[in-house]
Amino acid sequence: MTRSNALYAQSGGVTAVINASACGVIETARQHRDRIGRVYAGRNGIIGALTEELIDTNKETRRAIAALRHTPSGAFGSCRYKLKGLEQNRREYERLIEVFAAHDIGYFFYNGGGDSADTCLKISQLSASLGYPIQAIHIPKTVDNDLPITDNCPGFGSVAKYVAVSTREASLDVASMARTSTKVFVLEVMGRHAGWIAAAGGLAADADMDLPIVILFPEIPFDADKFLARVDGMVRRHGYCSVVVSEGVRGNDGKFLSDQGLSDAFGHAQLGGVAPVVARLIKQGLGLKFHWSVADYLQRAARHIASKTDVDQAYAVGKAAVRFALKGHNAVMPTIERLSNRPYRWKVGLAPLDKVANVEKMMPRNFISRDGFGITTACRNYLLPLIKGEDYPPYKNGLPDYVQLRNMPVTKKLKTDFEIS
Amino acid sequence: MTRSNALYAQSGGVTAVINASACGVIETARQHRDRIGRVYAGRNGIIGALTEELIDTNKETRRAIAALRHTPSGAFGSCRYKLKGLEQNRREYERLIEVFAAHDIGYFFYNGGGDSADTCLKISQLSASLGYPIQAIHIPKTVDNDLPITDNCPGFGSVAKYVAVSTREASLDVASMARTSTKVFVLEVMGRHAGWIAAAGGLAADADMDLPIVILFPEIPFDADKFLARVDGMVRRHGYCSVVVSEGVRGNDGKFLSDQGLSDAFGHAQLGGVAPVVARLIKQGLGLKFHWSVADYLQRAARHIASKTDVDQAYAVGKAAVRFALKGHNAVMPTIERLSNRPYRWKVGLAPLDKVANVEKMMPRNFISRDGFGITTACRNYLLPLIKGEDYPPYKNGLPDYVQLRNMPVTKKLKTDFEIS
Repeated sequence: MTRSNALYAQSGGVTAVINASACGVIETARQHRDRIGRVYAGRNGIIGALTEELIDTNKETRRAIAALRHTPSGAFGSCRYKLKGLEQNRREYERLIEVFAAHDIGYFFYNGGGDSADTCLKISQLSASLGYPIQAIHIPKTVDNDLPITDNCPGFGSVAKYVAVSTREASLDVASMARTSTKVFVLEVMGRHAGWIAAAGGLAADADMDLPIVILFPEIPFDADKFLARVDGMVRRHGYCSVVVSEGVRGNDGKFLSDQGLSDAFGHAQLGGVAPVVARLIKQGLGLKFHWSVADYLQRAARHIASKTDVDQAYAVGKAAVRFALKGHNAVMPTIERLSNRPYRWKVGLAPLDKVANVEKMMPRNFISRDGFGITTACRNYLLPLIKGEDYPPYKNGLPDYVQLRNMPVTKKLKTDFEIS
Repeated sequence: MTRSNALYAQSGGVTAVINASACGVIETARQHRDRIGRVYAGRNGIIGALTEELIDTNKETRRAIAALRHTPSGAFGSCRYKLKGLEQNRREYERLIEVFAAHDIGYFFYNGGGDSADTCLKISQLSASLGYPIQAIHIPKTVDNDLPITDNCPGFGSVAKYVAVSTREASLDVASMARTSTKVFVLEVMGRHAGWIAAAGGLAADADMDLPIVILFPEIPFDADKFLARVDGMVRRHGYCSVVVSEGVRGNDGKFLSDQGLSDAFGHAQLGGVAPVVARLIKQGLGLKFHWSVADYLQRAARHIASKTDVDQAYAVGKAAVRFALKGHNAVMPTIERLSNRPYRWKVGLAPLDKVANVEKMMPRNFISRDGFGITTACRNYLLPLIKGEDYPPYKNGLPDYVQLRNMPVTKKLKTDFEIS
């Protein structure tokens, strides 16, 4: 058995649990020093690989690496950068091979969503295309929950839990105020293309807790009249109502609802936010007092209320990625396979990367209620196990005791710099 | 010793822990059935007292009342309604006396902020002014932390913890993304007049965690040039920056920064939100990519991340209110007295209500750093004990197991209805 080094990199929008996957990779690799010499991390993802800005994770203590499991965000830095095809940008691939060769990289672990699956696939083909022997394993991560084959994506369960908990809490709040003040609360959540995150708002109400919730999915073209009628009905029956709106909701014209040509007194375009747009419609159409919130990064960074299922799975796919690599796999991705719902049981499976890259998994239509404003029992059964369990970080002085790594650089060996295009 | 009933009512914006005060009141009253017959609650605060819509808390199980301690929002409904002076609206006071007399109310507990302290004071004077014997005790509650005499207000510590935790988490997130994407994150928090809540954002960074945070306080007139220079410096040094902005920030002209005359393509006024205004300034002035969030109700409803100090104190002031009443007090408010900082020790004190009503406690200037964008050590020492400790609610199916009370009505005894003006 030969020994070589590993390169781990984080990609795209970060999550509450992507560092748990990093923890799984590094802890597992450290148990196999005969095969994996050192684990390097790309500073700011694949960009660090291109610019030879590598981080030596061996310089981190066992305790610091363990703390990654309860620390949100991307500890080594992430990036939004998609490698073009080999034909369009051969110099990037040649540069990667230079860096890999200089640092004896034999394993590449790329932790990201759909775009990074594509990048990882291209790197996995370097052996065949450019003659550099490497095993590339993709580790799934995305709050959007839109990767195919895997039952769910690490990162999603914790956002779903945050949105479900927050919707429950804010609904109780507005219920208290509705007699003389706010009657509608609007919460904007992520999900540019798929309504998975918005759907989680529906979990706030259940057999134990009767709360009126209207969901706006990106999958359902927005119909203002139907929506207002629905809100009006809820407020008449319950006295109040919560609206969970996906940032990706579009009108019948296909345009994002958030892109309504808002501008200030000077004619400057106003920037983003579908919640205020929906709130204004409610005010104008129904005359109801409202409050609105935009969760934005708070939802995906909220490690303090992470789902235990999600943390466990994020760690497990990191660990599995190393095991798969040691077994000789290339161009694969560990997946989550659901074995049963009650009790919820799952295991790690394996998917070929060419079946993952550039495929987006949308919400099945039968997860959205017929009227388009709620979730079905099928959806609830799918979602509930993913938000199950709490996995609280340790606290110090009233605040979560998250880790900031030392992130010591690996000495550069190449004489050339590389400009990111 | 005579026995009479008690009326408890919640007032103003609700919090993560106002129900813990309700729990303290009801549990303590139940231990003194020789003196307090039944505890009624006003449905939607003082409005329920005026309309004779009372809730019989004796119909709730011991278990349900105990669960109030971990349930956010106002379990009996709250209201925004301030009684006018006796001269201006004598009929309201006469009506209250009718309702009190019909239901043998001898104790009135009003749980709220500055406005309700004023209402409670007026009711405490009914014995003298209209000859109806009643003891009125005010129980402090406000996320704004602006009541005088008391060292802090129940409700504030949990919002402060939420803001500190969220700022820490979102800052780590933007730090991960800054190389190729978002460089500035803007979080809008509550605090129309005082910067207490915004100040809590400053706790996110400490000796253990180096995070660049800029705070915009309502106490400091907004200076766009100074602000942009500050953000620019932070981004140059750290690569990114978080901005915590109070909803109450005003420009030099005294106008709210959120009130910038934004309008949509049809000329409709755009509704609220200072975060997008600040974000646009950053984009226009520095050309930096940003994200923004508006926490709104999420921050004050976030019982899932409540401060243990806050929960304990909210419960304690509820309990103390009943004890003070049984000792014969009238027109008083239990307060929190800080005995020491390290270790943090506190006890419940007593303030005369006429010294509380209509007095607003602002942030001391020496709590804000000289440049106006941060907190001082004095401020940190004040705030830290208030966010200390976690007091997690129980969970069921991945969600907090909050209680919804039965809220059974007390049979009306009066023949007349009452119109709320």
